[in-house]
Amino acid sequence: MQDKKKKVSVCLTPGMVDLFKVEESIVVVIDVLRATSCMCVAFDYGVEKMVPVESIEECLAYREKGYLVAGERNGEMVEGFDFGNSPFSYMNPKLAGRSIAISTTNGTQAIHAVAPKAIEVVIGSFANISVLGDYLLERNEHTILLCSGWKNRVNLEDTIFAGALVKRLKPHFKSYEDTALIAETLFRAANFRKRFYLRNSSHFQRLMHLNLQKDVKYCLRRDTHNVLPVLKNGELVNILKK
Amino acid sequence: MQDKKKKVSVCLTPGMVDLFKVEESIVVVIDVLRATSCMCVAFDYGVEKMVPVESIEECLAYREKGYLVAGERNGEMVEGFDFGNSPFSYMNPKLAGRSIAISTTNGTQAIHAVAPKAIEVVIGSFANISVLGDYLLERNEHTILLCSGWKNRVNLEDTIFAGALVKRLKPHFKSYEDTALIAETLFRAANFRKRFYLRNSSHFQRLMHLNLQKDVKYCLRRDTHNVLPVLKNGELVNILKK
Repeated sequence: MQDKKKKVSVCLTPGMVDLFKVEESIVVVIDVLRATSCMCVAFDYGVEKMVPVESIEECLAYREKGYLVAGERNGEMVEGFDFGNSPFSYMNPKLAGRSIAISTTNGTQAIHAVAPKAIEVVIGSFANISVLGDYLLERNEHTILLCSGWKNRVNLEDTIFAGALVKRLKPHFKSYEDTALIAETLFRAANFRKRFYLRNSSHFQRLMHLNLQKDVKYCLRRDTHNVLPVLKNGELVNILKK
Repeated sequence: MQDKKKKVSVCLTPGMVDLFKVEESIVVVIDVLRATSCMCVAFDYGVEKMVPVESIEECLAYREKGYLVAGERNGEMVEGFDFGNSPFSYMNPKLAGRSIAISTTNGTQAIHAVAPKAIEVVIGSFANISVLGDYLLERNEHTILLCSGWKNRVNLEDTIFAGALVKRLKPHFKSYEDTALIAETLFRAANFRKRFYLRNSSHFQRLMHLNLQKDVKYCLRRDTHNVLPVLKNGELVNILKK
């Protein structure tokens, strides 16, 4: 019955997504450092919804509708925005019930690359890895783990996270394509010493320059936020919200 | 003086090559299973030159010019061709002095993706890994290791080979981009048990179906052929030829 299993595959950058059957799959969008980690924090602090938008201008336009605006370009907060891309900035009880429009260099672009076609778009980060894994097992659909990467380049941290999910899903799914094997191997090589392993990665170094060690450390911790952001009608909502 | 070092980077598929500065680099084209391995065998058996062409029709047109014609599509030999893509078929002393036109699913396409722009295009496989490494160290230019992959998808065996080269070049080059780290990690995970590790890869399984275990085993052996195929005016020649 091996071939009745659903497939789990890893897409290493949004630029390669056309090679995958998005329309038959749930897509997990991954931007570990730091967009999808921030989204998990925000929802855990009671944010009602988050609208991922592609441009800074679109984002600002949402302010008139009462939204807070969040985002970064090249790792730095956009001038005039309410939030940048640090998980700590979302740890604010005043966020409960608010709506946020967010635009980031890679994560929100990845969402837009698959949003119209996928069965469902789910947000993944180490912050919600276990609830996400359980949910994907329960849904039991073909699953694409979409790494946001860096401007269509492959990055290490998203690939490692994809590998952690492949390891979790593999007993019940068919691991599909060499990229799933690659990601799982990287996760096994990096696990328990992720920051050590990541020290040479491009985005790690970019964030070190910006003095964001604390952010990196936080984004690599597992299961810090019990949330499951899912895209519904173009807006992310936390489907675990009580 | 760290930053005076040249960069070595890994491009995981021809589809991503536009993200790299091809025009400033030597490009190593890698198609371990089996095109670039076959090329190394052919040159060691005295082939004068090999013309990589994109289509089956172009390939056949070379026959009228006295060329032998070689190639495969989806792992199988093209009907009416003189050779498929098995390294053993090139182990023939009658090849000495002959010219071959060759078209394969991925390897020759990868050559064409970079041929007009790169400083130089060199052919790499485990069969010539040491002479290739020495040559790249001696040339000391920015170097892109271009994995041919499978129809623009990433594959394991080419990535592992790229990792082996990164490991060799890294003490003298700046390893650039996360893909170089990824490839090296995979190589370290796979080395000494490459066939075991590759058993789940997509192309390995494709070749097993075609009964080509012997080919796979041969293509993973190191330094079996002391050749260095380089593209000169659109034709591959062995620059180590005595």
